[in-house]
Amino acid sequence: MVKTCVLFIQFVEAIVVLVRQTSHLRVTRALRPIFLVDCRYCGAVRRNLRQIFQSLPPFIDILLLLLFFMVIFAILGFCLFSANSADPYFSTLENSIVSLFVLLTTANFPDVMMPAYSKNRWSCIFFIVYLSIELYFIMNLLLAVVFDTFNGVEKMKFKSLLLHKRSAVEHGFQLLVSRQRPDGVCLKQFDGLMRFYRPRMNARDRFLTFKALNHSGATMLSLQDFYKFYEVIGLKWKARRSGEYWFDDLPRTAFLIFKGLQDLVVAINGIWILVETNMLIVYGTEVLLKITGLGPLTYFSSGWNLFDFSVTVFAFLGLIALAFDMEPFYFILVLRPFQLLRLFKIKQRYRNVLDTMFELFPRMASLGLTLIIFYYSFAIVGMEFFADVVYPNCCNTSRVADSYRQKNVTIGNRTMLEEGYYYLNNFNNILSSFVTLFELTVVNNWYITMEGVTSQTTHWSRLYFMTFYIVTMVVMTIIVAFILDAFVFRMNYSRKNREPMTEISNTENVVCVIDEMGIVFETEMSQTEALQTLDLYKHTLGVTNLSSLQDMCVTLERSGHSSLVFLGRRSRTKSDLSMKMYEEEIQEWYEEYSRTNLQPDETFHRELDSPEASATNSIN
Amino acid sequence: MVKTCVLFIQFVEAIVVLVRQTSHLRVTRALRPIFLVDCRYCGAVRRNLRQIFQSLPPFIDILLLLLFFMVIFAILGFCLFSANSADPYFSTLENSIVSLFVLLTTANFPDVMMPAYSKNRWSCIFFIVYLSIELYFIMNLLLAVVFDTFNGVEKMKFKSLLLHKRSAVEHGFQLLVSRQRPDGVCLKQFDGLMRFYRPRMNARDRFLTFKALNHSGATMLSLQDFYKFYEVIGLKWKARRSGEYWFDDLPRTAFLIFKGLQDLVVAINGIWILVETNMLIVYGTEVLLKITGLGPLTYFSSGWNLFDFSVTVFAFLGLIALAFDMEPFYFILVLRPFQLLRLFKIKQRYRNVLDTMFELFPRMASLGLTLIIFYYSFAIVGMEFFADVVYPNCCNTSRVADSYRQKNVTIGNRTMLEEGYYYLNNFNNILSSFVTLFELTVVNNWYITMEGVTSQTTHWSRLYFMTFYIVTMVVMTIIVAFILDAFVFRMNYSRKNREPMTEISNTENVVCVIDEMGIVFETEMSQTEALQTLDLYKHTLGVTNLSSLQDMCVTLERSGHSSLVFLGRRSRTKSDLSMKMYEEEIQEWYEEYSRTNLQPDETFHRELDSPEASATNSIN
Repeated sequence: MVKTCVLFIQFVEAIVVLVRQTSHLRVTRALRPIFLVDCRYCGAVRRNLRQIFQSLPPFIDILLLLLFFMVIFAILGFCLFSANSADPYFSTLENSIVSLFVLLTTANFPDVMMPAYSKNRWSCIFFIVYLSIELYFIMNLLLAVVFDTFNGVEKMKFKSLLLHKRSAVEHGFQLLVSRQRPDGVCLKQFDGLMRFYRPRMNARDRFLTFKALNHSGATMLSLQDFYKFYEVIGLKWKARRSGEYWFDDLPRTAFLIFKGLQDLVVAINGIWILVETNMLIVYGTEVLLKITGLGPLTYFSSGWNLFDFSVTVFAFLGLIALAFDMEPFYFILVLRPFQLLRLFKIKQRYRNVLDTMFELFPRMASLGLTLIIFYYSFAIVGMEFFADVVYPNCCNTSRVADSYRQKNVTIGNRTMLEEGYYYLNNFNNILSSFVTLFELTVVNNWYITMEGVTSQTTHWSRLYFMTFYIVTMVVMTIIVAFILDAFVFRMNYSRKNREPMTEISNTENVVCVIDEMGIVFETEMSQTEALQTLDLYKHTLGVTNLSSLQDMCVTLERSGHSSLVFLGRRSRTKSDLSMKMYEEEIQEWYEEYSRTNLQPDETFHRELDSPEASATNSIN
Repeated sequence: MVKTCVLFIQFVEAIVVLVRQTSHLRVTRALRPIFLVDCRYCGAVRRNLRQIFQSLPPFIDILLLLLFFMVIFAILGFCLFSANSADPYFSTLENSIVSLFVLLTTANFPDVMMPAYSKNRWSCIFFIVYLSIELYFIMNLLLAVVFDTFNGVEKMKFKSLLLHKRSAVEHGFQLLVSRQRPDGVCLKQFDGLMRFYRPRMNARDRFLTFKALNHSGATMLSLQDFYKFYEVIGLKWKARRSGEYWFDDLPRTAFLIFKGLQDLVVAINGIWILVETNMLIVYGTEVLLKITGLGPLTYFSSGWNLFDFSVTVFAFLGLIALAFDMEPFYFILVLRPFQLLRLFKIKQRYRNVLDTMFELFPRMASLGLTLIIFYYSFAIVGMEFFADVVYPNCCNTSRVADSYRQKNVTIGNRTMLEEGYYYLNNFNNILSSFVTLFELTVVNNWYITMEGVTSQTTHWSRLYFMTFYIVTMVVMTIIVAFILDAFVFRMNYSRKNREPMTEISNTENVVCVIDEMGIVFETEMSQTEALQTLDLYKHTLGVTNLSSLQDMCVTLERSGHSSLVFLGRRSRTKSDLSMKMYEEEIQEWYEEYSRTNLQPDETFHRELDSPEASATNSIN
């Protein structure tokens, strides 16, 4: 719909241009991001936009309250202060409203108060009351309302996703069971499904996934087992080595050396906390030891280790830059203080904060992108209307002339350039526009830019700046609500799970625990089982690519063990946290769902149908 | 402890003054509020202070993170920008740190960026990254952490209060039951308790309270009944008139007139929404009609009606002021736009917002008082150190000289006074100090005051301003968290109770509902019951003041009804909301409590013991 409208407008515009044969204000360029957003890679941005639109109705309600009080106080201010000729802020009703709008952002405080205050000391009460109501109460309400809506939207999103998954699982199960055995899915059918659902998964992992689902240990998966489908599908399987160390397979001498190194790492870790100066050598050695001790793969799978590693590498680069006096790499040197960041690892709360930071990063990035899209639209409009309107020594008729001044001043015998610099905040090109808009986002002294531009154009320019302020306020409030929500959620979660390792379930077949790295499923595969599966695959199902299973059999035979323990790992997602947090409500949802027997919408059904139906066909 | 220390310090100071026989810096005056806080009426302020101290440890953790990043960026900024001689903000490491501290509050943005930006356009990245990390991420984390702690503290407070009440009820029950009937409290004992617990309650209300507790309708209260003690103790009882209107008791003609008026109110209410201009006459008539229609007591018991009433009265006063041209009452006229506020009554969300506002008001007032106490301490210190240091045309050596300038400028043939006004932001007396501190709280341009004072004193003055900033940041964050918590809580609550009237319980004896005015218990008292009770009181218990019961019997006889329905009302408190919100957790807490069989601490026990023991004695 929106896209069609925009296309239509652009089409009309193109015709008008062709007819008139002249250039004109190209404001419609600001609408272009709509097409960008609608591409495949902007899903996150679209989600953010949806969230923003969902928060809008309550937001607008409170905004109206805010503006209502503003207008009342503007009238009051005009009545009280317009008699004072030295007070430019309340000279007309329009000035009065603009002054109080700017005061809402505190950008002109206390200047706006000063003329009135110097005449009558009690006039400060007007401003104190205004700021208390508007800034400290209603603005916070705005945040509360957005936070509240945000919370609700997040929960609803999670609920609908969960129920959709459940219905998908139920439908999949119905399609997979055969007529003879209607209450279970056997390995044959499951393997068929997996080959379509995850074509690049190897035979061993398919079998292990089946085992991880199979909590009861029977030969078939019940519907209850099958419900866990989405939980195990993302697991990465790895054999746990019979010993503890990755170098167990190496010859004996090397093993002893590495074992010693491993112990050293632990010892150095202990000493390291005591050593508080940033001794680069110790860090470097620590990193090297850790990599050799834990194995590169394990080492780099932890975000913290990666962080350590990059900090140390940067520090080394800085040292080299210093030693060889390389000018271009000088900036690396100034990054050295960041090494101190590792001190924050020690405290649990900092770990929480930085973990939240790492977790938030992808979504923050998409929020940032959303903001940039808004910036782009406003930058285009700004460039169309305000390009080249501000320059040094412009705006001499306005209150903010000083900020745009650039003149030579002679003090004593020295001539100095006195610069106001604000002419740099212009809309001459897209980059300058972005910087100007960022300054407007930060809001401090934004009225200088606004007044400067207004004095060179018309009073209506203020509308642009005020609209921009309100739009960024929406986005910024959502960012705040988002950080608040994520952090409070995480704190609640870590309060619910004080123990570092929580066992989710433990049946004879599968053990499932949550450790600090993520969720781990543990299952054992005996030699007989492996051979049987190999046989099944080879003869019954006709699967050809069985190297993963064959490798395993070979390893088992060589090591002399009768079974191998496999660990399936995946990182913890927001969905896992939500599952834990809404535990009780989820049960209610499920009950409600099975009562109403919600049918998934048809398209969804059809999408699911085709691959699985064929999978079932190919199996039977 | 703290009080003793302060007393000791003041004592030492007094001795020093006596020995030296000269005046000195009287900084210890700043400690005086401690004695003020410790009085009986400052309970709320003490609670706030406790909450602030409880939030401090996590707050300080995040603050350290904030300062850490600040120092790193200060070093980085110093390395990058100190080469530029036109940039006074990063000329030394100290300037660099101060500039970035001020930038944290955005007060010097974008000025702090401008010199570097004019030299190299890419230097804006430094500032954008700094602000994104510090202002938009860590500052929000600060809020999240405080909000989280706040939430937890509120819940714990509620829990401990609830369990203490439960234990009190259990002990009271143990003391009240007699040996013969160990599983129930009869009216005799209950009445004895009430006469000690609420000496000013009349006999009728005591009996009604007993009936409200007595859900089962038996002659004795079980422990289960008795648990509701604190819920019914605050009820105000009033007989519901057999008819619907308060004027039923009036003669017939008057009744008809009032009934007509009542209908008129409803009709006018309907019209009123259509009429959107502020027709004072309509409002006035509406208020009058409502008062006569509903009766003055019912009318004024609603906050909204009170609000309507005061707005209308103010508007009338304004009209009178206008008519008689009374100068001193002119301010009332400008309050007239506030009448528009009544438009906000219509929408549910605004009702929620304004209800939250009314509910928050007492606690906001106590938070404001806490803030004023902090202000006072800082004002005293400021007055000791900075009194009379700023005056017109001072500070010519600093960057902010312009703001303190006051000189005559001749433009054309007019001589104008150019004023910087900032010399008004001083610490010369306590009122000016308060206004200055408020300006520092709002933070915009606070560095002008700081730099002005610093240029007239020493560099160490900055410490005062920075400390003040951090202290107000703590208090302000708590205010934000508080508003957020209260509002989100209220929204959740009203979402859980969509229906305007929720029935809590409905036994044959007592009906308990929540309507928009509060909690209402409804119970019926028959004539026989009243006479029996009167008899019991008179002969068995020897209570003398029975006028309330006798009055009721007379009313019953006169009206010819066989029974009267009584309504017990109280307003909804935070505790009621919490009871509803934590419903499930409360069950867990009770179970845990009965498992551990928590003993209330001894003092508490003893306190409870004495009056009740004597009450029991006097009964038996």
